Amino acid sequence: MKLATLKQGGRDGRLAVVSRDLSRYALPEIFTLQEALDDWDQAQGRLKALYDELNADGGKGEPFDPGQCHSPLPRAYQWADGSAYLNHVELVRKARHSEVPASFYHDPLMYQGGSDSFIGPRDEIFAQPEWGIDFEAEVAVVSGDLKQGATPEEAAQAIRLVMLVNDVSLRGLIPDELAKGFGFFQSKPASAFSPVAVTPDELGDAWRDSKVHLPLRVTLNGNLFGYPNAGQDMTFNFGQLLAHITKTRDAEAGTIVGSGTVSNKQNDLYGSSVEHGGVGYCCLAEVRMYETIESGKPQTPFMDHGDVVEVEMLDANGNNIFGTIINRVNTQYYSEFK
Amino acid sequence: MKLATLKQGGRDGRLAVVSRDLSRYALPEIFTLQEALDDWDQAQGRLKALYDELNADGGKGEPFDPGQCHSPLPRAYQWADGSAYLNHVELVRKARHSEVPASFYHDPLMYQGGSDSFIGPRDEIFAQPEWGIDFEAEVAVVSGDLKQGATPEEAAQAIRLVMLVNDVSLRGLIPDELAKGFGFFQSKPASAFSPVAVTPDELGDAWRDSKVHLPLRVTLNGNLFGYPNAGQDMTFNFGQLLAHITKTRDAEAGTIVGSGTVSNKQNDLYGSSVEHGGVGYCCLAEVRMYETIESGKPQTPFMDHGDVVEVEMLDANGNNIFGTIINRVNTQYYSEFK
Repeated sequence: MKLATLKQGGRDGRLAVVSRDLSRYALPEIFTLQEALDDWDQAQGRLKALYDELNADGGKGEPFDPGQCHSPLPRAYQWADGSAYLNHVELVRKARHSEVPASFYHDPLMYQGGSDSFIGPRDEIFAQPEWGIDFEAEVAVVSGDLKQGATPEEAAQAIRLVMLVNDVSLRGLIPDELAKGFGFFQSKPASAFSPVAVTPDELGDAWRDSKVHLPLRVTLNGNLFGYPNAGQDMTFNFGQLLAHITKTRDAEAGTIVGSGTVSNKQNDLYGSSVEHGGVGYCCLAEVRMYETIESGKPQTPFMDHGDVVEVEMLDANGNNIFGTIINRVNTQYYSEFK
Repeated sequence: MKLATLKQGGRDGRLAVVSRDLSRYALPEIFTLQEALDDWDQAQGRLKALYDELNADGGKGEPFDPGQCHSPLPRAYQWADGSAYLNHVELVRKARHSEVPASFYHDPLMYQGGSDSFIGPRDEIFAQPEWGIDFEAEVAVVSGDLKQGATPEEAAQAIRLVMLVNDVSLRGLIPDELAKGFGFFQSKPASAFSPVAVTPDELGDAWRDSKVHLPLRVTLNGNLFGYPNAGQDMTFNFGQLLAHITKTRDAEAGTIVGSGTVSNKQNDLYGSSVEHGGVGYCCLAEVRMYETIESGKPQTPFMDHGDVVEVEMLDANGNNIFGTIINRVNTQYYSEFK
């Protein structure tokens, strides 16, 4: 089943059921995605029936336009972002000549993100260029209710939906913020999620061990920048990431957990880039770390006005699963905010 | 105007208008507090009319029982907690023989807290004793919509409600978590808010410069433990704390911002305690820091099974403004979670 939220109605938008091929949508009786998640046992059958109708009858529904979409949850009660691809962390540490603590391999890194006001999958990123504007292409899941102490296995069973996310990151603000000791805040502005969220069964064999075993495709200004496999080198699966939340508290239906920047282990700067046969990168910071490791300083600039990042995932037959996130950076309009 | 949320209806409870003296309540047409905040311009007049009726007619309404209350927002889209009383930070640093960075006096400390599932003002805290269970008594505000780049003055105008909060903290989990660099996560479980949230005008002259100029009273197992004035030594007011959020993104209606542990500048361990004429402390960590500074190590234990913390604020006439938070620690039931 594929679900989207249209920019209609109130702050939470209007839930839409989208055909498997992303060509058409129909409006269910349930108004918002959060309402469906709040009572999933009741909701899923009714949504699935409409989804099956849409797929069976090519004449049913209205044309689906990802440009009319909010993030599936325009605002959420929880957005917790992990950093499960330790290759990314290893590169960060190597670039600054420090070791990865042993605990990082059994205790997930996770930060609490702002979830009150996401941007949409086709919205602009408003920021100042001196903030070091970067993207982070990730996979994310939406869970049902989990009680304090839930195990990774219980948490895996509670995964309701899978999405993609561009976790916009302001690299220039991170060092001062982390030095304060309280974690990310201003350096992690509003994230953008894929036009469509899908139930895990839509992924077929690609959904195994609470991971998505498909390449995540990142395009920067029209050029393929990365396509690492999200199922590889993921040290903690989504069940484990969700269970990290529930060690000390409940997690309520609609909790979104991110995988962290997808990153596959590769060799060197030359061999890791797409043009030289590597799988590339899911954020600018990663290629800048390779550059720092090999030449002492980064070369690739962060994003500037007009730069466009796209994030999507294709199935084994080349079909777009989630729709494409397309975020353009706007640093000029930003001045109106000041 | 005073508002509460009863443990009735769905996940968001049932909004109630409470009489000024906290004796009675009536149910407005608007069902939940988030609905009221989403459309505050429309809602506030209708809620205020009911509030005025309740106060004018002592026979109107039902008996109000804080034990039937959720936190005013049982789940929220944002809970961002500042650390605006720098005396607390200065003591932390002094206890570990380090300096407070100069930037801390002009750039607020703030972490993103989990907001999907708060506990109620009279609910138990489920935790393991070895986690170092502590309370943090704070003031918090709920804001309306703020655009990216909002100034402290604009943010101050958008403050809709004031509450108290017990920001439960697990001190034993903090060092390892902060060492990972991503900030608090498991060490900050679900917070509890006061039974009642009030509009700033209810505070009269005590609401000045976006601060609450009244003592915050903390009682531990029936003994007064602290009553520092929340209007004193607050380096950043609530307008400034809200504006910290909006530097890089919007903040949506219903955003909750906390002050951090209220802490007044005092002299030494002896003079700071309530029994020796000081104003005491709003968390156990603070007296433990005085102990560490003076004797090399902390003496006061953290909370254990059955310990009860109460947080409240009285007006100039001794009337309870927000109702009392009463949280008991339960470490035995915790084992059922494991």
